[in-house]
Amino acid sequence: MNYRTVFHTLGNILIIEGIIMILPLITAFIYHENIPARAFSIAIIIALISGVLLTRIKKQQKKTMQARDGFVIVALSWVVISLIGALPFYLSREIPSFVNALFETVSGFTTTGASILIEIEALSKSLLFWRCFTNWLGGMGILVFMLAVLPLKGESTLHILKAESTGPAVSKIVPRMRESASILYIIYCVLSILELAALLGCGMPLFDSITHTFATAGTGGFSIKNNSIGFYDSSAIRTVITVFMFLFGINFNIYFLLILRRVKEIFKDAELRMYLGITAFAIITITFNINMIYKDMGKSISESAFTVVSIMTTTGFSTADYSTWHGYSQIILLLLMFSGACAGSTSGGLKISRFILLGKAAKAEIRKLVSPRIVKNITYNGKTVKPETVNGVYSYFVIYVVIYVVSLIIVSFNDFDMLTSLSAVVSALNNIGPGFADVGPAGTFDGFSVVSKLVLTFDMLAGRLELFPVVILLLPKTWRKY
Amino acid sequence: MNYRTVFHTLGNILIIEGIIMILPLITAFIYHENIPARAFSIAIIIALISGVLLTRIKKQQKKTMQARDGFVIVALSWVVISLIGALPFYLSREIPSFVNALFETVSGFTTTGASILIEIEALSKSLLFWRCFTNWLGGMGILVFMLAVLPLKGESTLHILKAESTGPAVSKIVPRMRESASILYIIYCVLSILELAALLGCGMPLFDSITHTFATAGTGGFSIKNNSIGFYDSSAIRTVITVFMFLFGINFNIYFLLILRRVKEIFKDAELRMYLGITAFAIITITFNINMIYKDMGKSISESAFTVVSIMTTTGFSTADYSTWHGYSQIILLLLMFSGACAGSTSGGLKISRFILLGKAAKAEIRKLVSPRIVKNITYNGKTVKPETVNGVYSYFVIYVVIYVVSLIIVSFNDFDMLTSLSAVVSALNNIGPGFADVGPAGTFDGFSVVSKLVLTFDMLAGRLELFPVVILLLPKTWRKY
Repeated sequence: MNYRTVFHTLGNILIIEGIIMILPLITAFIYHENIPARAFSIAIIIALISGVLLTRIKKQQKKTMQARDGFVIVALSWVVISLIGALPFYLSREIPSFVNALFETVSGFTTTGASILIEIEALSKSLLFWRCFTNWLGGMGILVFMLAVLPLKGESTLHILKAESTGPAVSKIVPRMRESASILYIIYCVLSILELAALLGCGMPLFDSITHTFATAGTGGFSIKNNSIGFYDSSAIRTVITVFMFLFGINFNIYFLLILRRVKEIFKDAELRMYLGITAFAIITITFNINMIYKDMGKSISESAFTVVSIMTTTGFSTADYSTWHGYSQIILLLLMFSGACAGSTSGGLKISRFILLGKAAKAEIRKLVSPRIVKNITYNGKTVKPETVNGVYSYFVIYVVIYVVSLIIVSFNDFDMLTSLSAVVSALNNIGPGFADVGPAGTFDGFSVVSKLVLTFDMLAGRLELFPVVILLLPKTWRKY
Repeated sequence: MNYRTVFHTLGNILIIEGIIMILPLITAFIYHENIPARAFSIAIIIALISGVLLTRIKKQQKKTMQARDGFVIVALSWVVISLIGALPFYLSREIPSFVNALFETVSGFTTTGASILIEIEALSKSLLFWRCFTNWLGGMGILVFMLAVLPLKGESTLHILKAESTGPAVSKIVPRMRESASILYIIYCVLSILELAALLGCGMPLFDSITHTFATAGTGGFSIKNNSIGFYDSSAIRTVITVFMFLFGINFNIYFLLILRRVKEIFKDAELRMYLGITAFAIITITFNINMIYKDMGKSISESAFTVVSIMTTTGFSTADYSTWHGYSQIILLLLMFSGACAGSTSGGLKISRFILLGKAAKAEIRKLVSPRIVKNITYNGKTVKPETVNGVYSYFVIYVVIYVVSLIIVSFNDFDMLTSLSAVVSALNNIGPGFADVGPAGTFDGFSVVSKLVLTFDMLAGRLELFPVVILLLPKTWRKY
């Protein structure tokens, strides 16, 4: 491994995190929260000092970066920012166990939104702010942010962007990496500001609007209220959040095409069409299914739309406790937990494009059985898909299943009922937040053992970074110098 | 499609089934069961007449058989033998609904062992015999039986054997197909006779021994008692059945190697070693886990061994209601439901060898990320695996998931709790029998709607025939003449 470059980049990341944490520190000052302010100050000092020390390590400019170095940088960065990011919760004693604080922070950065808290509203304002802000930072990726602001050169940037972005293949928006990263963050900020304005327009208080915008944009789902969005008795607020959850589930390249007015390409995008189709199908059928309970079509539509979009984009906000719904609705929601939304968005899950690719590959295989002599290439959005891409997606699923099964076995020792164990791991690995049964929208992850919490923390990281970076970290060969 | 050949072969199958059904007819005479005797007679007459009529259609000797014709023959044969096999239950009015009778028969032939009956012991002896006999016939395959007794020639036989055998790839035992089929059935009969002798030796009555041997050999799991093997309060009987369930989960090629004394190859077989390893791991850990309930090491070992082997081989016999066990044990059993035992055995599930192949493929993919320049082939039991084989396994999983998801959505309309819906489809598609919650060892499939029962019936067939034959049946292109 290219140790020097890795350490140098980690240093940069730490400095950036230290600077970013000044925002919640200011929040602490505004609300006169002394203990959190001290906690944030200590965390900032630790981040900045270790960051500066690490950046003093000179990069090896001659050596080339390999794909695995990109993976290692991304994986280690996420571990490091989570460890530092957990300090304010821990040092302020508002989350007295460090494992819990780490779980909460990783849940934030990975935009999972699973919580070990029962009384969310008991946290001080600055920590609530920081908690939701991690959702926003993790959504687009803190390394992508670094690429957008720091003048890094060379192939290393491509490897980093590849490793931190979601979906089976990264298509560079523009040839230069730094521009790509900047464009992504500009679109992200513009959409966030639009949501903030809309929420303020609906009469939501400023602090609530900012924090919920952070959590929506990252499709994270951390709320500052115990009852999540269910707290706000305003259909306008629910509608705004439903719409923006949906928008943040779309591939950001689509917005770039929109800016370039290449509308034709947008309508031809297979994943976007599938995303629209699945969302519509799920909302409509669940509306009719839960109308048997609510007996109020307006309420049924609104609850169905909010929950479907919240689960599918893996945001995890809740207004209703869907674990009391009928069997059909629950099964559809469970399936949406796996699908996720679009690649290149801030959402988690397996991503619709992966399923499209696999479906096409399976179709080709069946075709071969019926007509063995006809050979056809698999195409996606009009382009031929390389066999390596398909194989990459296949192995992605295999590794996913392996991590899922091993995690499940460890978590099952907690002796919760099956549905709790099964869905806790699904929720962590797909970065959703709530699951079913004891970890449903009304539940908490606090009941798990320390070991299980660490496993679920690992799963959240693995899910957000799409497995490979985290898996590579576990291979001894990665740590050899070259 | 080669219609003439297909019809001709279906005719042969019907004649064989008609002749085979004389056995339960004799049973009816022995026990003086008049109504079942009449029902069997009518079914036999229908089978023989339609069989003779169909065999009068001349095969097209000039035309070659294609793989898909083999698939179609196998799939249609299984549909036809199930329809005829259901008649005795229906005509005798012991299962008054034809959908239920069909479900029970398909469950028998596919060696699933799921039942819509609550009072199994209320059935007449001849029907109990027929019910368990379908397990035995379906285990090795009725078409393989046909190949063993009828002098069929040409490539058609290979395609049929391929389509009816289990596992990712068929290795012919000996060059000639007919001999291969005969050897398989001889091994099957010898093992069955050994079990029968052992059960009789343990003091089990003759009728019970025969029927339970049928159900063990096919890894079907139909019992003649409401409490399944739990009825017999004899640890000797449980041990014998545990051992034979395990033996019938082994690839039959292994027994052939044993006959040839090629012991070295047996010990090197990756799937067999994994089968032993997983079984040992599951039995040991579950023993300790359930000993917290039973507080009796002997009982815990025996219950654990019986249940693990019963689930892993997808037999589905039960002695204990495992849905009352601790979380860990239930999760392990759930995972075993997917794994199944060895390819080329009578067991269902996805088969261990498929998982081994996928694991190796994923490993190769990770290796490529770490060291992009080193290209290594995937090997299995010392032989290089062709990329097509791996791709075949991948698409197998994709089609499996598609069928699973579609079935689950339809079944979820019954509004059972999630675990019931989830595990009912798992149980049907993996040919296990019992699932969890309402379809656990103490439950029944009777509560599902007619539509759900038909979907689950389809799933059982799809699982037993390993998807492709059934999927091909659904494609319009298959039905075109050529």
